[in-house]
Amino acid sequence: MADLLGQINGPEDLKKLSIEQLELLADEIRWLILTSVSKTGGHLASNLGVVELTLALHYVFDFKTDKLLWDVGHQCYAHKIVTGRRVAFPRLRKNDGISGFPNPQESVYDQFSVGHAGTSIATAIGMAMGQSQSGQKDKIVALVGDASIVNGLSFEALNNLGLVKRQLLIVLNDNSMAIDATQGAVAKYFSKVRLSQTYEDLRKTTKSILEHVPLIGKTVEEAVERIKKSIRMVFPASQMFESLNIPHFGPVDGHDIESLVRLFKALSHLNHPAILHIYTKKGRGFGPADDNPRKFHSTGPFKINGDAIEAPIAASAASASNFTDVFGRHLTHLAEKDGKIIAITSAMCDGTGLTDFQKKFPDRFYDVGIAESAAVDIAAGLAKTGLKPVVCIYSTFLQRSFDQIAQEVAMQNLPVVFCIDRAGVVGSDGPTHHGLMDIGFLRMMPNMVLVAPADEGELKLALEFALAENKPVCLRYPRDIVPSDELDRTACTQPFELGKAVFVKKRPDSVIALIAYGTVLTEAIRAAQLLGKEGIGVDVINARFAAPLDKEIISLLGNHKGIITLEDHGLACGFGSAVLEAAADPAGPLGKITVPIITLGMPRVFIKHDSRNAQLMQAGINADKIAQTAKEILNLTR
Amino acid sequence: MADLLGQINGPEDLKKLSIEQLELLADEIRWLILTSVSKTGGHLASNLGVVELTLALHYVFDFKTDKLLWDVGHQCYAHKIVTGRRVAFPRLRKNDGISGFPNPQESVYDQFSVGHAGTSIATAIGMAMGQSQSGQKDKIVALVGDASIVNGLSFEALNNLGLVKRQLLIVLNDNSMAIDATQGAVAKYFSKVRLSQTYEDLRKTTKSILEHVPLIGKTVEEAVERIKKSIRMVFPASQMFESLNIPHFGPVDGHDIESLVRLFKALSHLNHPAILHIYTKKGRGFGPADDNPRKFHSTGPFKINGDAIEAPIAASAASASNFTDVFGRHLTHLAEKDGKIIAITSAMCDGTGLTDFQKKFPDRFYDVGIAESAAVDIAAGLAKTGLKPVVCIYSTFLQRSFDQIAQEVAMQNLPVVFCIDRAGVVGSDGPTHHGLMDIGFLRMMPNMVLVAPADEGELKLALEFALAENKPVCLRYPRDIVPSDELDRTACTQPFELGKAVFVKKRPDSVIALIAYGTVLTEAIRAAQLLGKEGIGVDVINARFAAPLDKEIISLLGNHKGIITLEDHGLACGFGSAVLEAAADPAGPLGKITVPIITLGMPRVFIKHDSRNAQLMQAGINADKIAQTAKEILNLTR
Repeated sequence: MADLLGQINGPEDLKKLSIEQLELLADEIRWLILTSVSKTGGHLASNLGVVELTLALHYVFDFKTDKLLWDVGHQCYAHKIVTGRRVAFPRLRKNDGISGFPNPQESVYDQFSVGHAGTSIATAIGMAMGQSQSGQKDKIVALVGDASIVNGLSFEALNNLGLVKRQLLIVLNDNSMAIDATQGAVAKYFSKVRLSQTYEDLRKTTKSILEHVPLIGKTVEEAVERIKKSIRMVFPASQMFESLNIPHFGPVDGHDIESLVRLFKALSHLNHPAILHIYTKKGRGFGPADDNPRKFHSTGPFKINGDAIEAPIAASAASASNFTDVFGRHLTHLAEKDGKIIAITSAMCDGTGLTDFQKKFPDRFYDVGIAESAAVDIAAGLAKTGLKPVVCIYSTFLQRSFDQIAQEVAMQNLPVVFCIDRAGVVGSDGPTHHGLMDIGFLRMMPNMVLVAPADEGELKLALEFALAENKPVCLRYPRDIVPSDELDRTACTQPFELGKAVFVKKRPDSVIALIAYGTVLTEAIRAAQLLGKEGIGVDVINARFAAPLDKEIISLLGNHKGIITLEDHGLACGFGSAVLEAAADPAGPLGKITVPIITLGMPRVFIKHDSRNAQLMQAGINADKIAQTAKEILNLTR
Repeated sequence: MADLLGQINGPEDLKKLSIEQLELLADEIRWLILTSVSKTGGHLASNLGVVELTLALHYVFDFKTDKLLWDVGHQCYAHKIVTGRRVAFPRLRKNDGISGFPNPQESVYDQFSVGHAGTSIATAIGMAMGQSQSGQKDKIVALVGDASIVNGLSFEALNNLGLVKRQLLIVLNDNSMAIDATQGAVAKYFSKVRLSQTYEDLRKTTKSILEHVPLIGKTVEEAVERIKKSIRMVFPASQMFESLNIPHFGPVDGHDIESLVRLFKALSHLNHPAILHIYTKKGRGFGPADDNPRKFHSTGPFKINGDAIEAPIAASAASASNFTDVFGRHLTHLAEKDGKIIAITSAMCDGTGLTDFQKKFPDRFYDVGIAESAAVDIAAGLAKTGLKPVVCIYSTFLQRSFDQIAQEVAMQNLPVVFCIDRAGVVGSDGPTHHGLMDIGFLRMMPNMVLVAPADEGELKLALEFALAENKPVCLRYPRDIVPSDELDRTACTQPFELGKAVFVKKRPDSVIALIAYGTVLTEAIRAAQLLGKEGIGVDVINARFAAPLDKEIISLLGNHKGIITLEDHGLACGFGSAVLEAAADPAGPLGKITVPIITLGMPRVFIKHDSRNAQLMQAGINADKIAQTAKEILNLTR
């Protein structure tokens, strides 16, 4: 294989190549992504699918000034590789390496740090209108997948595309696959269109677009009409967009670099927003990912057998259970006994541990696609009829449902259970994916019960509690393995009781109390052990609830010299903040407490990608650091 | 006029009437709404538009068991009147009266407390699926307006309508008018359809639907096909919904009770979700509201000339300026000098004070329709190109933009200015409309600056500050008139400086410090006066910023006996909570402070409709109560 990639230090080097060379380069990039992700972990299938698309875009546009907007952004690896980050690529998602998502701090070729779906069209509209206002003429391209386009935000943006009176190209990358297969009417529509097209149809469509665009002196609408007439449309692919008055071109083959280059050149001259609909295949060029894109959506490190790409073996074999699996298994178990349990997710069936639930109870499982807001309102409707909906969404994406949780669930006091996975720092995915605001935005809502289990047993107990409670309940747990240590957690085996914390360690000579919310309890227990060895008595409380808070148990800590709260959440508005609020109420049970309360949690900064442990450590959520904080309090108060 | 209305104590009484009597009843209801709203204030135009629709629905369905889901819900007055709340209706929105929105606590005929747009289809889907699970067969009707259907949540729900395998009727009430005229491609599409239809077309469509639905042994899709063939479709009204695979019937006349009754009867038997598209006219039957539905969308009390409905005079003549007006005027003023200022709103042009701005700078004003999420991302794109976007959305609706503000604005550190109107309690609109969570959800976001002006002058200064600051800035102000008292606010005339509070009153003998965030400053100054008369020295600080907090100024309060924070926001995660967090940081400037800090703000409950003053008073945000709290602290600490 000729080393073309070694010469590519920026998109300008790309432009020196012939189309044939670009095709060879695509293979080299694919190989780099594959070998590198096999070591670092990351998103694989989607990145293998957009190599040709990425090369064609950079070949035609100059994204040093033109703007390329990624949607979700986890498919930007080829883009990173050809925009000066080839050498850094093997350190993807590592503390000292580059981010797994677009990041303007890394490169002028990245516009937004993105990680959530559906943002590209709206931000592109803003940039296009801004360019019009300022008389700038840079080309703008929004690259959106078929899974993202069904998000409400995408639709709101498409509905407002008419605001733009200049060039704006939306590339709809249709690979018929979100993390899980895309759900809903739009997906069905795309799939019908897709099934009706032969490869020959795609070639004809390409040819027809190139013949008719740009038509000097004709409007875009006229061009679209001519194209439609010139090709036998097996299925009206553009109907949906036509009703929204958006010129739609395609579908065309997203792996045919030559055609893509010619199409982008032609369409870049339109003075009107337009959609180019392309087909790509997730996992393209790598047998196992090609066959099982779901498995290779986001992967840990894996092995490649020899240097052949046909037979690699997935080796992300964490022997220990993680919270996601424990949750999924236990929900499935409980659902066997309780026919009222319904699981709802938004394109995160696998990620939230619901794969088995879905298999066992296909009629009681709903994946609504990337539609977090609707997921919650559908759950509210289900709860209204007496069922027990369990909404499974990552903390970071649940931010999309804030208003629906407040209005349609909390205000109605409906018994919807929110199982919030990836709560806390998430490690290598970085800032767009941390779940550091859920305690804050949820605890403001009247009626809402907030629970955080500390370990595997507690996750099960908390889930049982939540399903039995006739109120809205939120459970949060991290992207982490469950603790499998020898620490004494006997107190954690008690059933959950609304608003009741438990003493995990209690000794009469205690001078410090540690109150842990969630899995950070492990570090609290360890810190108590460390301090105990130095003769410092420490009580450890497992808070279990952030709302309602167990004020009674905290009021027992009046004789201590200091209280430390611990959480895997932002300090602003978090669990510790709730404790401070309770302590500030002179009429409340904590009104008499004058013990200093120190809160440990995440600082108010965007925390970059790293290992989860390193991220927690930086915030002082670690036995050694907790012990140190305790000793500082004692020095201050002695 | 025969008193039919007097006999209607519930929908069962309605069912005894003939169609002719229903038509007479519609007039009586319209008159009751008109005279009553002229005294209580409330939503007028939309309610006058749906009287016939409401009567026809209740005539056909039995909503004691069947489910009627309102969208937004401000158009539920006729519904309230015929469901047992006729006598209570004149006390609409009053403390001792009924709510202006649907409310399940008031009536079994109300399913959800709703006030936000786009929720009805998703909640209806949930209820329909829940009914299927439980084997129930109640009919479900979601009533959604053309302004609500463009919201992302509606679209997400429509995309998932296929989950429902039973009856679910969506009535699309197309009146071509949100609070402001509906924006976007869907609105244009509806308007094209509407313009292409004559009244005769509507009659023909009705006839054709009735002939073909239900077709025994035929599918809904077949019926739809037959209907389309049987009527000359001037414009393919159903194209948009067809591509989503949703059977679409109509458009038909929404003021023709007889036809509506026959249509609802026919469509209620479908075993499949379907949309019935109807046309109504906002303000129908009342000349001035008919002519100017925007003015009469939500109105204060007004006069009716004699008992004729032709010539009433709007009399909502608040002589004092409110914050909305001051903001609108000043933004327009600043925009004259700064061409980079762009205003964006989501169907709240008038409500956020932008009417003049829009007139003066039509090219720098964007109303994106009810699409709060997209509004923010479009603003992010604008800011990226160097412009100064100002996003004007009420606090309660900005909850819909939480994730976009966090990810596309705060994470990118883009200088978008959020002007958050209706922040705090809103009075008679009640729980769905209070803005009691914005400080909490915004102050968690790194980079975000939170400002609250205390009076008219400060609103101007804060706006100037926000536009000059190269960061994301949020300004909050209430639905209230600006203070026009004689209190000394000299300190408030100083320009805003990032993170700097100001002393409004400072005396050497002070024992209590009041720290007010926002317009509650007035009550703080008054409380200080009251206490001063009793010889109690009080310092008053105008906080100005909730983030970054002025910790230095608070650290000067170490010798006081107590600090009281004041805010028009929930106590959970609010301004006071931020002060407590800062005081809990031993390394921070407040680390040495041991003064008790008492926080005053709204309790964690849903606060019902009432006057704004009464709502503030209940939470202790009132000079007398603040003074009392101060004295309690002194008793405790003396």
